[in-house]
Amino acid sequence: MKALVFGAGSVGCVYGYILHNAGVDLAVVCRSNLAAVRNSGISIDSELYGQVHYNPKAAGSALPGICEQIQEAVGERTAIVLAQNGIDIEREYAQRYPDNAIISGVVWLATTQLSPGMIKAGKAEKLEIGTYPASAPASHKQKAEQLSELWSQGSPGGGAPVYEDIQPQRWLKLTVNATWNPIAALTRCDGGTLSLIAEQASATDILVRTMHQVGAVAASTGCAGLVTDAHVKRVMQFYHSQRATPESGKESSMLMDVNAGRPLEVEAILGNLLRIARENKVNVPDLELLYFLVLALDHSNAKRK
Amino acid sequence: MKALVFGAGSVGCVYGYILHNAGVDLAVVCRSNLAAVRNSGISIDSELYGQVHYNPKAAGSALPGICEQIQEAVGERTAIVLAQNGIDIEREYAQRYPDNAIISGVVWLATTQLSPGMIKAGKAEKLEIGTYPASAPASHKQKAEQLSELWSQGSPGGGAPVYEDIQPQRWLKLTVNATWNPIAALTRCDGGTLSLIAEQASATDILVRTMHQVGAVAASTGCAGLVTDAHVKRVMQFYHSQRATPESGKESSMLMDVNAGRPLEVEAILGNLLRIARENKVNVPDLELLYFLVLALDHSNAKRK
Repeated sequence: MKALVFGAGSVGCVYGYILHNAGVDLAVVCRSNLAAVRNSGISIDSELYGQVHYNPKAAGSALPGICEQIQEAVGERTAIVLAQNGIDIEREYAQRYPDNAIISGVVWLATTQLSPGMIKAGKAEKLEIGTYPASAPASHKQKAEQLSELWSQGSPGGGAPVYEDIQPQRWLKLTVNATWNPIAALTRCDGGTLSLIAEQASATDILVRTMHQVGAVAASTGCAGLVTDAHVKRVMQFYHSQRATPESGKESSMLMDVNAGRPLEVEAILGNLLRIARENKVNVPDLELLYFLVLALDHSNAKRK
Repeated sequence: MKALVFGAGSVGCVYGYILHNAGVDLAVVCRSNLAAVRNSGISIDSELYGQVHYNPKAAGSALPGICEQIQEAVGERTAIVLAQNGIDIEREYAQRYPDNAIISGVVWLATTQLSPGMIKAGKAEKLEIGTYPASAPASHKQKAEQLSELWSQGSPGGGAPVYEDIQPQRWLKLTVNATWNPIAALTRCDGGTLSLIAEQASATDILVRTMHQVGAVAASTGCAGLVTDAHVKRVMQFYHSQRATPESGKESSMLMDVNAGRPLEVEAILGNLLRIARENKVNVPDLELLYFLVLALDHSNAKRK
């Protein structure tokens, strides 16, 4: 079996390793780390895998416009796996490749690229997957099962559970991504520092109400009862648990993009969310303000580069 | 007459020049620019004054806790002039120095310190003043008139008009400061870039509603009908007029503080505003979110330094 990982950043490098480890014939598309990956391959220091190394076939470059760029690599039987943050990210692929299996993935993996090709990862790895749309043909569902099997061969992590409908899992992750991620990027706080601030009562109120706004949009798409008080409480507790190590707190992916001068995932994480909210007439004032702020941050970030 | 300018940053340096120019015996308290001001004095390149230079008596250091620090300089007849952004900034001085004239000033002056002691300023300068409280004794009102006269002797700018009640002017400036200033600091946009983003319809909606929230708090303190649609429109137009020069747009004072690693004026500009909103039960969700974000930015900024 052959696989192409399009975008070998820190997550793509770990996913490439899982596929390589499962015996897949692998190629990766890199951006700034192309020369390093070609010369020295990819090294991962992970609590889950230990110190590992692999040499994939490597080409450049994963710039925006991925949907068009992968055209040459997409054959009749190719499954397209999207492991990107945000909501409503699958639509353009489904329109461009209407007969291919589109597998939508929600990533749970904390990892960072220390230097080109040198990856650091933690002890947890899970990829939640499902077809797009949920009503895809049986042959597409089989592709998802096949990917899940590959994942359990390639990684001793939490595997790649297949969901009949993956969208609720996307919304649950978006509850975190659309709130804490932009806030971290705007305030330039690592997880530890942010959790210190978030412990103040008024800050807790703001975070809880903002996460519930994401839940209200999810409910308007049919995912009602998903972002519950209990879910929001678990997210708050997760962040407060990071308070113990304010100095070592991880930086969110959007803050890493700010610091590296990369484009921010504004539309996938907030723009699409607001478009759905407008269409379904859901009131989301805090998400609106965060979107405006992150849009402006993305502009100044691009200018500074 | 003697005057002490406590805090000779870019505004303090221009104000020192105005007082010096009016024949006042002047001393200034510096922070990072102390050595430069002692060695070479203060140079100002201003559209209003041309290239000017003066050598004040200089001491250090204007760190937080100004209310206590000025104690030695405050005699029986000393007027304390506060030219700081924000709202409810006068209270601590009135409590600590109950018999002194407290003159509250609203600064309209775009200026920046290019290097220690080297100041660049534009063509506009106006200081709106009035006693704190508005019901202060006649002797305090006379001090305000005296300051106004000094100002017209020292500067060909807009002068220092005396208001019977200065608080409405504070609220008008706060409409700008509590919205555009934190937004610029969070998004790291100069005026030009920010105005480009603000032209989008949804961004205009957010800015207008946030400025009206400041107006609602002002109204709850008795300043009703102050932040009108017309005022908000004027502020929007002012920012949109900067669109012509996106590259040369000025950085707001809070963004300059972020870039210099200085403490941000979080409490004066947003904390006090929110306390008043809570006391008067005014609903200000956007200001709450901005406060939380700027508080977190202030923490990460202090850590980075």
